Amino acid sequence: MNKAVVLLSGGLDSATTLYDAKARGFRCHCLIFDYHQRHRREITSAVAVAKKSGCSYSVVKINLPWKGSALLDKNITVPQNRRLDRKGIPVTYVPARNIIFLSFAASCAEAMGARKIFIGANAIDYSGYPDCRPAFMNSFEAALRRGLKTGVRGQGISIETPLIRKTKAQIVKLAVKLKVPFQLTWSCYQGGRKPCGVCDSCRFRAKGFEEAGVKDTTI
Amino acid sequence: MNKAVVLLSGGLDSATTLYDAKARGFRCHCLIFDYHQRHRREITSAVAVAKKSGCSYSVVKINLPWKGSALLDKNITVPQNRRLDRKGIPVTYVPARNIIFLSFAASCAEAMGARKIFIGANAIDYSGYPDCRPAFMNSFEAALRRGLKTGVRGQGISIETPLIRKTKAQIVKLAVKLKVPFQLTWSCYQGGRKPCGVCDSCRFRAKGFEEAGVKDTTI
Repeated sequence: MNKAVVLLSGGLDSATTLYDAKARGFRCHCLIFDYHQRHRREITSAVAVAKKSGCSYSVVKINLPWKGSALLDKNITVPQNRRLDRKGIPVTYVPARNIIFLSFAASCAEAMGARKIFIGANAIDYSGYPDCRPAFMNSFEAALRRGLKTGVRGQGISIETPLIRKTKAQIVKLAVKLKVPFQLTWSCYQGGRKPCGVCDSCRFRAKGFEEAGVKDTTI
Repeated sequence: MNKAVVLLSGGLDSATTLYDAKARGFRCHCLIFDYHQRHRREITSAVAVAKKSGCSYSVVKINLPWKGSALLDKNITVPQNRRLDRKGIPVTYVPARNIIFLSFAASCAEAMGARKIFIGANAIDYSGYPDCRPAFMNSFEAALRRGLKTGVRGQGISIETPLIRKTKAQIVKLAVKLKVPFQLTWSCYQGGRKPCGVCDSCRFRAKGFEEAGVKDTTI
C-alpha cells in the first residue's frame, strides 16, 4: 500500500529523491526517460542508480519530433559559465518536459496502484525552468485529481517534491546522510567521459558540494 | 500567427475537431499517437484524415510499459453491448491518456509557436472517462499557464474543446456541414476490417448518425 513512482534522470537530485522516498518506507518504481536527449550518459547513470538502490524501473522511450532546446538539438550550444543567478529561461529548457514526465508517472502510478509520485525538482539553485516550481506542481496535482480515475474517486495521486525548497548544499548534505551513490550520478548537460564543468548543471552541482564541504567523487 | 495543434485519433470526433479548427482559420498541425494501442487501424485512419485535410502531421511514438486497460492489453475483453447511459468508468479507460496526449501537444505547440491546442473530447455521449470533462480541461490549462515558458510570460496556450458539450447527433451534423471525410474515420475499439458494431464507441457513433438522420458511409 506504500508504492511510489519516482522520476529518475540520473542526476544528483533525482537520485537523492529516490533514496529519500526509500528512507520514508516507500516501495519505489523508477521511471527513466529516453527522449533522444543530447546524450545517453544520463540514461546509463539512471539505470545504474536504480539497480544500486534495489528498486524496479522502466525505461520509457518517447520521441519529441520538434526541437527548440539545446537538450534536444545538438546544433544549439549549451551555455557555458553563465551567471547562475541570471534571470530568464535558458536554451536548455525543453518545452513541457516535466509536464510530459509527470503525465507518464501519473499513468504508471495509477496502473500499479501507487498513490505518490516523487520528483527531484528544485526551485532554489536551478536554471529557472517554470515546470520546476511549487506553483506548477500544485496546479498539476489539481489537474490529476480531475483527470484520473483515482482522482475522481477521491483517492488522488500526490506529487512529492522533497527537494523543491532546498539549496544545492542542503541537497548534498541530505544525499550524504542517505548514502546516495554519488559516483553513479551524472549531472552534466554534455555527454563526454568527464563532466564539462562549465554548463549550468555542472556549476550548480560544484557549488553545492563546495558549500556543503563535501568532496564530489564522480570525477 | 494562427497556428494550432490538433490531437487526431482517427475517430469521428477528432476529425470533426480538425475540420472545425480549419474552418475557423487556424493553420493546423496534427498530432497522432502510436501508443501500442489495441490495433493500428486508427493510426492509419488518422494519417488518412490528416492528409485529406491538407494539414501537416507528426506521428508520436510512445510506450506505456504498464497495462491495466482493454485498449493496451488484448487479454482484457472490450465490453460489448453495454448500456450507453451506464455509470462508472469502463475497462477501456487508459490511465492518464489525455493527460499524456495534451502534454505532448503543449510541448509541440510551444516549440512551433502555436497558442491553441484542439482536442475532440466529449462529455455528453461518452464513456465516462474523467479526462474528457470540462473540469479537467480547465484544470490542465491552468497547469500549462504555470509550467510552460509561454505561460509564465502571460502568453498561455489554451485548450479548445469545440465538441465537449455536444451530443453525438450534433457532432454528426457539424461534421456534415464541415464536409468531414467520414469514410476515412475509424471509431471502433477493435481493429477488424469492419467496425464491430457492439463496442461503446461503435454504438455511440451509430446512435449519433441515427439521431442526426445521416447515413454513415464508413461501412
